[in-house]
Amino acid sequence: MVSSETDRTNWLDSAIQDAGAAAYVAYGSSADANVRYLTRFRTTDPVVYVHKPGERGLIVVSQMEYERAVRESTAAVVTRADVGFLDCIRAGESRWRATAHVIADMAGGPLLAPSFFPFALARHLESFQPVILDEKGVVERMRAVKTPEEIQWIRGAQHVTEAAMDRGIALIRSSVPKDGLLYRNGAPLTSEAVRTEMHTTLLAHGYRGIDTIVSCGPDTALPHHQGRGPLLEDEPIVIDIFPQDERTGYHADMTRTVVKGEPSPAIREMYDAVRAAKEHAISMLRAGAHGADLHREVVEFFRDRGYESNMRGFTHSLGHGVGLEVHEDPSLGPEGGELCAGNVVTVEPGLYYPGIGGVRLEDMGVVTETGFDRFTQYEERLTV
Amino acid sequence: MVSSETDRTNWLDSAIQDAGAAAYVAYGSSADANVRYLTRFRTTDPVVYVHKPGERGLIVVSQMEYERAVRESTAAVVTRADVGFLDCIRAGESRWRATAHVIADMAGGPLLAPSFFPFALARHLESFQPVILDEKGVVERMRAVKTPEEIQWIRGAQHVTEAAMDRGIALIRSSVPKDGLLYRNGAPLTSEAVRTEMHTTLLAHGYRGIDTIVSCGPDTALPHHQGRGPLLEDEPIVIDIFPQDERTGYHADMTRTVVKGEPSPAIREMYDAVRAAKEHAISMLRAGAHGADLHREVVEFFRDRGYESNMRGFTHSLGHGVGLEVHEDPSLGPEGGELCAGNVVTVEPGLYYPGIGGVRLEDMGVVTETGFDRFTQYEERLTV
Repeated sequence: MVSSETDRTNWLDSAIQDAGAAAYVAYGSSADANVRYLTRFRTTDPVVYVHKPGERGLIVVSQMEYERAVRESTAAVVTRADVGFLDCIRAGESRWRATAHVIADMAGGPLLAPSFFPFALARHLESFQPVILDEKGVVERMRAVKTPEEIQWIRGAQHVTEAAMDRGIALIRSSVPKDGLLYRNGAPLTSEAVRTEMHTTLLAHGYRGIDTIVSCGPDTALPHHQGRGPLLEDEPIVIDIFPQDERTGYHADMTRTVVKGEPSPAIREMYDAVRAAKEHAISMLRAGAHGADLHREVVEFFRDRGYESNMRGFTHSLGHGVGLEVHEDPSLGPEGGELCAGNVVTVEPGLYYPGIGGVRLEDMGVVTETGFDRFTQYEERLTV
Repeated sequence: MVSSETDRTNWLDSAIQDAGAAAYVAYGSSADANVRYLTRFRTTDPVVYVHKPGERGLIVVSQMEYERAVRESTAAVVTRADVGFLDCIRAGESRWRATAHVIADMAGGPLLAPSFFPFALARHLESFQPVILDEKGVVERMRAVKTPEEIQWIRGAQHVTEAAMDRGIALIRSSVPKDGLLYRNGAPLTSEAVRTEMHTTLLAHGYRGIDTIVSCGPDTALPHHQGRGPLLEDEPIVIDIFPQDERTGYHADMTRTVVKGEPSPAIREMYDAVRAAKEHAISMLRAGAHGADLHREVVEFFRDRGYESNMRGFTHSLGHGVGLEVHEDPSLGPEGGELCAGNVVTVEPGLYYPGIGGVRLEDMGVVTETGFDRFTQYEERLTV
């Protein structure tokens, strides 16, 4: 069972009341995932969001954005002029102070504010009303439990991501090795060319590829190395792609590792261990399992096969939530808590050894009461 | 004369000392323009940045990111373990508290923090050291004065942006009107298709198009309407494109308005007024001019031709700075201050009338001691 929208609004109301606050406040553009989640409004310029228990959340926008906001946002909409912002500016207040002033007037009592609320706004608000830090991250917790609609968006994103992955791997598969490099149409096939091919596929489907990793050879030993230059024969190529749906803002996230040519025995063994670790972790995923336990289980799984989990070997977390952010709650890492149905998570074990290289595989799906509904369908094959 | 890197670091040192602080602190991923500016490090996960006067700025990253950060960042790099973060976590501190703890230890005195510094971090820091709000936005002011290298990046971005604009307009020009719609290859030419064509061009050059506006007909009366669906004959099509260079993070920004077919007399007049307003404003741009004066001048320019600047007509600011953000300092709006050499700004007058439509034109360039070095070379032609 996945929580409904109504359930989650109740979470916010409870958090406000438990904190002894009159309202919850957020501030940001739609690049701020909490703001986008609470408003479903795409905007480059920051908006104020105020939510009082039992009422519909409200955003404050400029006059210029009013009509578009009414059409597009799930929140109620008022203009800056409506709430007295322009009067405050005319009275000589700075923009931050005027914004704080109108928020305090709207709330009429103490405010609950998220971790990433701007310091300038909190500082000015404090001279009008107490500001309480939302230490527990209520909106992050709401975001972590996806609705059926959100699950559909993310599943759709994963589908398109696999089409892009397939285009990228097809370029590598059809390349021609010569003197240690891979060639295509007579020129070296580069990380950049594979990335552009995948991003172009994404674009045609209304998705945006950002910072996609196509790393090769020695660079693969650094998990976040983006990769550049000619791709190499017989060396691991790690492709980690986490595009965003332009329309909904939701992401997918997947990783495959391939070799054109003959992998070293060490890479072959690492690949088999990583694949087995992923399947082992997925077999344990269900509502009630703990992220930290799953991570520790994989650390032990690797240790039994002779791989460390420290400065080398398995150097990152097992996985993470995915939604409006690529990395969001819940964590499948050392600090991860209890999972619940509706959590969309990735499972991405990896092994990294300087001088040998890196291997990572990543699948994504939704946690259910009885297991894990995997979205990722794409094949795993080391040599292409 | 454009300020050198050294000059600008001195600004930061002075701001710290003037505030009576021991260090400047920032926190964020490279999506935070200040963090990216200060570190030149691309990262999805937030980093801590601490700058003490006379010293090189320092970033704190995870062990996994250390090697990449050393290669890529202009800041000095230490790991979380180096600064005691992991010890704080082991001692039971929350991540925010542990982060505040190590920042306070590194600074050894009061901290100067920017407007968008996370409230959670400020709140925890306050129990270790005083936190002073940087009301004047020293890093935003540094960012507003571009170095020759930044100017080169933005000029390059504008060059690619014009190639993309040209592709988009070519689709419209080559379309075939029928029954009020524009057709291409027998199907209606849509806003989405033009956007995808332009984004694909950008991608091939290593640029990312985000939220590009291709609006048509009634939608053009809303300046930020992104546009959707079939494009119309005889109606204004507003194309506003502000891509980001994947490598450097810098943007360009330009707007053109075109009509396939016969524009209404009202749109023709608006187009002529907007173009004349833009050239008038540009003729007044130079170091020492004030953003607010330029904006007011254009309001008056439009008023003399019978156009309002209120709920309808010219409803937004004349222009804005461009750099790591599409909208940054300085403002060419009602609150804009004095301009200086090295400011990269857009000039984008527009007129918007419900029932008639909208027209906007936007050029970009760098303010000099004696005038304005315009980057935008692309033609202005209403009918295509």
